[in-house]
Amino acid sequence: MQGSGEMTEGLRVKQVIVVRKDLNMRKGKIAAQVAHASMGAILSFRDSFDGDTVVLRPTEEALYWLNTTFTKICVYVNSEEELVGLYERAKSAGIVSCLITDNGLTEFNGIPTKTCAAIGPALVEDVDAITGGLPLL
Amino acid sequence: MQGSGEMTEGLRVKQVIVVRKDLNMRKGKIAAQVAHASMGAILSFRDSFDGDTVVLRPTEEALYWLNTTFTKICVYVNSEEELVGLYERAKSAGIVSCLITDNGLTEFNGIPTKTCAAIGPALVEDVDAITGGLPLL
Repeated sequence: MQGSGEMTEGLRVKQVIVVRKDLNMRKGKIAAQVAHASMGAILSFRDSFDGDTVVLRPTEEALYWLNTTFTKICVYVNSEEELVGLYERAKSAGIVSCLITDNGLTEFNGIPTKTCAAIGPALVEDVDAITGGLPLL
Repeated sequence: MQGSGEMTEGLRVKQVIVVRKDLNMRKGKIAAQVAHASMGAILSFRDSFDGDTVVLRPTEEALYWLNTTFTKICVYVNSEEELVGLYERAKSAGIVSCLITDNGLTEFNGIPTKTCAAIGPALVEDVDAITGGLPLL
């Protein structure tokens, strides 16, 4: 990693992606939605989209994560209400996050459906304060 | 989308992520690996990592994809040999791609293991020339 001080060396950073199990999505559908959420969180650091260049200005924690472990963990909830609640809590806590709404074109009978949300990358303790205790997918 | 000519308007672009089914990974493990691959392909457009800024210079197709559909499709193969073969073909064809090797710290008995590969984002016909015919995950 370039341009980082010693402060970042010992950082423990992760991204947790919360998935709705109640939708009974195929494995491949889940994986694609999770990838949307994970990347969406990083793209939210977009500073500019200038011509053919994308400039991101991540938090210190996210930059460290991009350069090192890239840790992603998938957990699940059983309702839209729980999913949205966790997302709102993360936003309120100032944690980068991304809620994905599938457009329903190929599944969910054409109905736009909230499928998953990425919480972080952020400090492990900050993410755990939101998603700690949720079961692994 | 900014800075693009009319040429990009009708582009059909996608990313296909090829997953090894023979590893029998959990749903959440698959999803995390797929997200690694998907994001890894985009980060391969990294032009510089300058202090606290990440600058990406994607292909025209990838930039269009980031700004529009974000289409991701998961398919599977049944061996490492097939996975690596497809990845090598994509690289040879000049398609952006990313092969993920899990470090084996939490699964695979500590053995680093190739789990999946992202092919694209690139033109649908170029991706299909590599992954067309593979079954949906």
